[in-house]
Amino acid sequence: MRQRYKPWADDYLKEKNHIALENPSLNKGKWSSVFGNENPIHVEIGSGKGQFITGMAKQYPDINFIGIEVAKSIIVSTVQKVDEAGLSNIRLLNEDANDIRSLFADNEVEQIYLNFSDPWPKNRHEKRRLTYKSFLEQYQDILPDEGQIVLKTDNRGLFEYSLVSFSEYGMKLVEVNLDLHAIEDEKNVKTEYEEKFSSKGHVIYRCKAKF
Amino acid sequence: MRQRYKPWADDYLKEKNHIALENPSLNKGKWSSVFGNENPIHVEIGSGKGQFITGMAKQYPDINFIGIEVAKSIIVSTVQKVDEAGLSNIRLLNEDANDIRSLFADNEVEQIYLNFSDPWPKNRHEKRRLTYKSFLEQYQDILPDEGQIVLKTDNRGLFEYSLVSFSEYGMKLVEVNLDLHAIEDEKNVKTEYEEKFSSKGHVIYRCKAKF
Ligand SMILES: C[S@@+](CC[C@H](N)C(=O)[O-])C[C@H]1O[C@@H](n2cnc3c(N)ncnc32)[C@H](O)[C@@H]1O
Ligand SMILES: C[S@@+](CC[C@H](N)C(=O)[O-])C[C@H]1O[C@@H](n2cnc3c(N)ncnc32)[C@H](O)[C@@H]1O
Repeated sequence: MRQRYKPWADDYLKEKNHIALENPSLNKGKWSSVFGNENPIHVEIGSGKGQFITGMAKQYPDINFIGIEVAKSIIVSTVQKVDEAGLSNIRLLNEDANDIRSLFADNEVEQIYLNFSDPWPKNRHEKRRLTYKSFLEQYQDILPDEGQIVLKTDNRGLFEYSLVSFSEYGMKLVEVNLDLHAIEDEKNVKTEYEEKFSSKGHVIYRCKAKF
Repeated sequence: MRQRYKPWADDYLKEKNHIALENPSLNKGKWSSVFGNENPIHVEIGSGKGQFITGMAKQYPDINFIGIEVAKSIIVSTVQKVDEAGLSNIRLLNEDANDIRSLFADNEVEQIYLNFSDPWPKNRHEKRRLTYKSFLEQYQDILPDEGQIVLKTDNRGLFEYSLVSFSEYGMKLVEVNLDLHAIEDEKNVKTEYEEKFSSKGHVIYRCKAKF
């Protein structure tokens, strides 16, 4: 996603640090108390400008959502959306998910969303893909048994890779959808990339996999 | 596949019973002696008019191929192709694969091909799909550990179903290709259906799964 230099981003994030949390690893194992309830926690990695996670938070008020987004200039858009909508069931972490185990205790997260993750098409960059086995190891720890990963993308290479990677790791595929938009599904909350690429005629893939 | 009544089919198959074997279950456990060598045995279920299996037999003379096709009026076309090409590494069985365990001993088959299998899209017909779990159980017996199933189809529903069915059964996906023809692959032997549907613009899917 294109990043613009936004000099005001630092100050803005500080001002809204009840939404975009500072030092989030201090909350590891205590996310329920951050939200003030015992609702299940769903995490999106690479939440971008936040259309998906804010849409989900509106649709599912009894689920707590945490968006992890490494780019500061991008996450500010999500903070604005959350602030304007007055959503209390979202928190945002301006972090790299590489070390997601430092953010969540074992079994603390019920579901993980990977939406239009960077495909890293070159073989030598395989380790950077968010569905590479070293990531799956971490997801397995923070998810409970039967915890799910939900992946959406228009990128054929990443999707093919991810299905095989899940399978090789010993995960089970719960759903595979090779044309998500073939049937209108009101429950499907679209991401920015999903809207952009489906309007260009790309097919959208989705799968759900569990440990 | 459309079946035409061919009154001469019975006589023709009898005449060519060195290619289209009668009472094939008598060869269970003895297929190497039928071929007169110890080469690996690959089986195609629903071999149709035989373009794939004859093409494969030409390309891989050191593999023995067995085509199973339930429709007599269809299998005769394959017999003609085998006869004309003088291929010694193919045998054809005019049988229903429902009871494939009666045809092969444990571990006797190295690879199974399912090409453009009937999709049976209605839920109540799930059991008829060649990737339903009762079929996978049988395939597991006749294949060795690590033995593979290779599936090609243009049918999205069947492909999605099969990926999940393989996974639920505990099989591992070795390859998933969501647009087989995107890159020209000279080694890919096309089936009749594959040619027909790809020329109509359908995407061709392929996956390889092992036990
Ligand atoms: C291609 S964009 C997709 C954005 C959004 N999910 C969508 O579907 O519209 C990928 C996003 O993931 C973020 N990202 C990539 N790797 C990340 C990581 N390791 N940790 C956190 N965010 C990451 C990028 O900064 C970018 O915003
Ligand atoms: C849709 S056609 C595909 C033919 C060919 N594989 C191709 O790709 O061009 C499916 C074929 O499988 C055969 N078939 C379906 N179920 C079968 C079964 N249980 N045992 C053997 N053959 C079967 C049908 O008679 C038909 O010829």
